[in-house]
Amino acid sequence: MKAEIIAVGTELLLGQIVNTNAQYLSQELAAIGIDVYFQTVVGDNKERLKEAIRQAQGRADVLVFSGGIGPTQDDLTKDAIAEVLGRELRTDRPAMDKLTEFFADRGVPMTENNKRQALVIDGCTPLPNATGLAVGVAISSDSHHYIVLPGPPSELKPMFADQAKSWLLHQVLTGEMPIYSRILKFAGIGESALEDKLLDLIDAQTDPTIAPYAKEGEVAIRLSTKAENIQEANVRLTALEVQIQSRLSEHMYASEDVPIEETIVKMMADMGLTVSAAESCTGGMVMQSLTTIPGSAAMLRGGIVCYSNEMKEKLLNVPHDYLEGTDAPGAVSEEVAVVLAEQVRMIADADFGLSVTGVAGPGYSERKPVGLVYIGIAEKGGKTEVFELRIKGNRETIRKRSTKTLLYRLWRRLVQAEKQG
Amino acid sequence: MKAEIIAVGTELLLGQIVNTNAQYLSQELAAIGIDVYFQTVVGDNKERLKEAIRQAQGRADVLVFSGGIGPTQDDLTKDAIAEVLGRELRTDRPAMDKLTEFFADRGVPMTENNKRQALVIDGCTPLPNATGLAVGVAISSDSHHYIVLPGPPSELKPMFADQAKSWLLHQVLTGEMPIYSRILKFAGIGESALEDKLLDLIDAQTDPTIAPYAKEGEVAIRLSTKAENIQEANVRLTALEVQIQSRLSEHMYASEDVPIEETIVKMMADMGLTVSAAESCTGGMVMQSLTTIPGSAAMLRGGIVCYSNEMKEKLLNVPHDYLEGTDAPGAVSEEVAVVLAEQVRMIADADFGLSVTGVAGPGYSERKPVGLVYIGIAEKGGKTEVFELRIKGNRETIRKRSTKTLLYRLWRRLVQAEKQG
Repeated sequence: MKAEIIAVGTELLLGQIVNTNAQYLSQELAAIGIDVYFQTVVGDNKERLKEAIRQAQGRADVLVFSGGIGPTQDDLTKDAIAEVLGRELRTDRPAMDKLTEFFADRGVPMTENNKRQALVIDGCTPLPNATGLAVGVAISSDSHHYIVLPGPPSELKPMFADQAKSWLLHQVLTGEMPIYSRILKFAGIGESALEDKLLDLIDAQTDPTIAPYAKEGEVAIRLSTKAENIQEANVRLTALEVQIQSRLSEHMYASEDVPIEETIVKMMADMGLTVSAAESCTGGMVMQSLTTIPGSAAMLRGGIVCYSNEMKEKLLNVPHDYLEGTDAPGAVSEEVAVVLAEQVRMIADADFGLSVTGVAGPGYSERKPVGLVYIGIAEKGGKTEVFELRIKGNRETIRKRSTKTLLYRLWRRLVQAEKQG
Repeated sequence: MKAEIIAVGTELLLGQIVNTNAQYLSQELAAIGIDVYFQTVVGDNKERLKEAIRQAQGRADVLVFSGGIGPTQDDLTKDAIAEVLGRELRTDRPAMDKLTEFFADRGVPMTENNKRQALVIDGCTPLPNATGLAVGVAISSDSHHYIVLPGPPSELKPMFADQAKSWLLHQVLTGEMPIYSRILKFAGIGESALEDKLLDLIDAQTDPTIAPYAKEGEVAIRLSTKAENIQEANVRLTALEVQIQSRLSEHMYASEDVPIEETIVKMMADMGLTVSAAESCTGGMVMQSLTTIPGSAAMLRGGIVCYSNEMKEKLLNVPHDYLEGTDAPGAVSEEVAVVLAEQVRMIADADFGLSVTGVAGPGYSERKPVGLVYIGIAEKGGKTEVFELRIKGNRETIRKRSTKTLLYRLWRRLVQAEKQG
């Protein structure tokens, strides 16, 4: 089964945004055994879009579209497909009800153009949009299969994962031996170091296959096998997973595609442990990351963003002579990381206290290099650890790596606590 | 002049990397007045690549290739183009000298396949690779123009900027006018409401053109004009910008592509104002957003993530009977939003205090609906405002919209303060 991904949007052709949807869809299609042969980007122009559709019909079985289904006059994806297929557009009642409710809730009138978001192609399976207003489309016609998804990744991803994928599996991929995949997630290790440790397995792979799985700031691999059923697949995938886990036990935190935050929230909730954080250069990123996970209220007490030295002194009792004076270690120091972690733990009456203080740059004094970061972990009745990081990269890279490394270190502590407990 | 960008690489089709080259090249081509009509990604397969080249010949004047010119057997871009054009490949002497020197320096023998990196298409202008080993190609043939660049962005960008661009300007674009663009950014308004207010301008557009585009959680439009020079372009773009600004003055926060956080940080730094925040359901997202901006240390004091009720009471002096009891307004209430904003402002001794408290879901008690959020703004010597939001969507949508709306409201207060000051 061959696929072509067609992204629609002049903003892509002008280079205003990057086509991350093509990456996501390529990974997801590969995972269910559909090979992507072409990715195409076309502007908001109906004739060129129709030309792209006809070309794709000549070289692919499955055409997956992203973008061009919003409320504006430029949004023409459904119109173009309908014309190529010789079908009409019709209003999807549930989508229109959602639109009506959306505008009624806000007490603003719904403009005419917004109604376009409820249009679907006659004869299709409408794909409800859980995180937006434009309804998607799945339709088979003349031995081709078409899926139409919204452009914003926050809408495209759930619509693909929750609606389109199952349509493909049940309506399109019938009779093929299904591919079963498992994602393994790693922290505290880079992609090339990981591959190095698995080189013999990667070189010898036939079935299951081992493929790197790109995720922003995270390291993951995907194991895949074709099998008659999930039991058969699980036997093979688990055998390989056990081999990999034994080589990388200090880094492998999950055998499903979850961020390390989710593993931490679950472990702490299960163990009845709580955490709080004092963040300087990350400005709240550690707590913000943990609170993306539903259920984090059970383990995160809260904490303090101590961006200024005054806040460090006033709210976290950092001694003034740690921060200022010729012999002071300064705000970015092991000493301050210790105080921040221990104090915030006590203030919040939590089991663990986390701290981050560093130079995210650009332009910071204290005569310390950009990328120098101290992260701390204090524990009720346990020892306080501080790690010195030296991170290369820009401001956001430094802040994100600091956050990810602190979460990795917290996970290691929880694994130890679990063993001892 | 129409262009098509053709990226070559199976790793793109597998979703292992994102096609950032297409974004870079699209921006650079637009800046010299070449319109990109299509972007295509094709795997390391000569027949499919040749098919893509023939298709592109039918719809573009300029074909820009990235990738597939390295040393491996999969690297087939030059071979495919040479076959389509009916030309031979030949070795480029300077490129071969560089390869020979490279391997001699390292004291390792050069394997046969490495020599492929020095191949060029007969009759072309070779493009030297300043940061890598594979030589690029620029060639005109039968009224089409072909540019072949390496895949790694660290090689592609300098080769385009220093070699290919000037080849295009001097060999291809003789006598065409360049395009100048300006981005306008808006907050507190949706894409379709914005378009509605500009519908007559959009319908009547010829030059400059107006194109709406959605960035995640942000609304922007792009004005573009073809002009002899930047002075001439600026006169036209500014005239249109003034018209748009007068209609949308409550929403247009910038005439460049910056997030609202950046506008806020700059305004507050200029006015010498400071801010702090007390965040419940956003878990630090407001402060994390502001601290993405270099220079935010001048205006953000820090603040408190009061995720649990205990933290709200202990650190922010929220009265216990606001939080618990049958008649209590509860943590998600206007009353608590007021206390949080005012208290955190006083604790941090800042000019403004921000607060967020809401139900991000899923599964929250207090008998309040998921998506109900209160945001507050307190000001030293000024009034405290609270806004009730009812946001549809998942946990992340609710948290992001709450953050963006609070930042929008803060921006409005700063605009007022600027007028009064």
